[in-house]
Amino acid sequence: MPLTNGKSGKSPSIAIDMDGVLADVYAQFFKMHLSETGEEVAESTMIGVPEHTAFPLLEKHVRTPGFFRHADVMPSAVSAVEKLNQVYDVYIVSAAMEYPNSLVEKYDWLGEHFPFITWKQIILCGSKYPIFTDIMIDDHFKNLNVFRGPQSFLFTQPHNALADPGKHRRVHGWDELNKILL
Amino acid sequence: MPLTNGKSGKSPSIAIDMDGVLADVYAQFFKMHLSETGEEVAESTMIGVPEHTAFPLLEKHVRTPGFFRHADVMPSAVSAVEKLNQVYDVYIVSAAMEYPNSLVEKYDWLGEHFPFITWKQIILCGSKYPIFTDIMIDDHFKNLNVFRGPQSFLFTQPHNALADPGKHRRVHGWDELNKILL
Repeated sequence: MPLTNGKSGKSPSIAIDMDGVLADVYAQFFKMHLSETGEEVAESTMIGVPEHTAFPLLEKHVRTPGFFRHADVMPSAVSAVEKLNQVYDVYIVSAAMEYPNSLVEKYDWLGEHFPFITWKQIILCGSKYPIFTDIMIDDHFKNLNVFRGPQSFLFTQPHNALADPGKHRRVHGWDELNKILL
Repeated sequence: MPLTNGKSGKSPSIAIDMDGVLADVYAQFFKMHLSETGEEVAESTMIGVPEHTAFPLLEKHVRTPGFFRHADVMPSAVSAVEKLNQVYDVYIVSAAMEYPNSLVEKYDWLGEHFPFITWKQIILCGSKYPIFTDIMIDDHFKNLNVFRGPQSFLFTQPHNALADPGKHRRVHGWDELNKILL
């Protein structure tokens, strides 16, 4: 039973994160680190480690023009979100405000890869605390732990891979998510 | 009694609109219309009339670089929001996504005029439906009418001046608002 009613007045609402859920930011971190240092970061050094620790140049790289605009899309994300968008009241919610260069890049990236998402469905914020939907999908506990809606999914990424998901349900990708939600 | 707890864990949260509440967009509409046509739009033709009708060139003007960046601040807005920010969990929430050129302009405008507002407190969205705070301050019914929190204020602007505020409480400016909220 949805807590909130969506734009259609009947569908449950979902807040879907961008970085690490729709956009493959690890692939960007890896590529930019390799390009700048000549070093490949080993997968084992990312597991259970904060992104800033695994990639010490992260703060510089996310402020580099093109970081967000040219990120790869996560596997199966486009077809999954397209299907969810038929049934749910979908919002793409990204904590982008720390990096103002990312605002237009994220808008343009969504326009290219998720053209069925309209401007009415996009939210770029700082804290996600004021976002209240039925469902939240995110890879960061800082967002999930302040979420007030009834259902939250922890999207597995290297930094959270060893953590106890707590009250959130862990999912390992879009195929698994869509089996649950559709 | 607050419905939600703010970042401090105790203060009620407020969503404050930008255009027509913090930023004097009517002054911008007026100036740009005059500059392009040589005509001064009479105040009487704005009252109770949608902004798009009173200013037929609005769609062009809001897409002009600098429209949002160079808007005047509404009277008493800075000191009022600064005081509210001491007591409440303040979020600046603007339905900006229809005009992607406005995203960075709005971020920069807030940084100039409201430097005490941090990036964590800014939300640029399409629909305001997913925003759930204790209080919303807005000049548009399209935002107030989908608001699910307990207290909503209709900030008087020419387009809404003749409307029945309905379940929302009408206020005529920041001085009045601060007397109510502080």
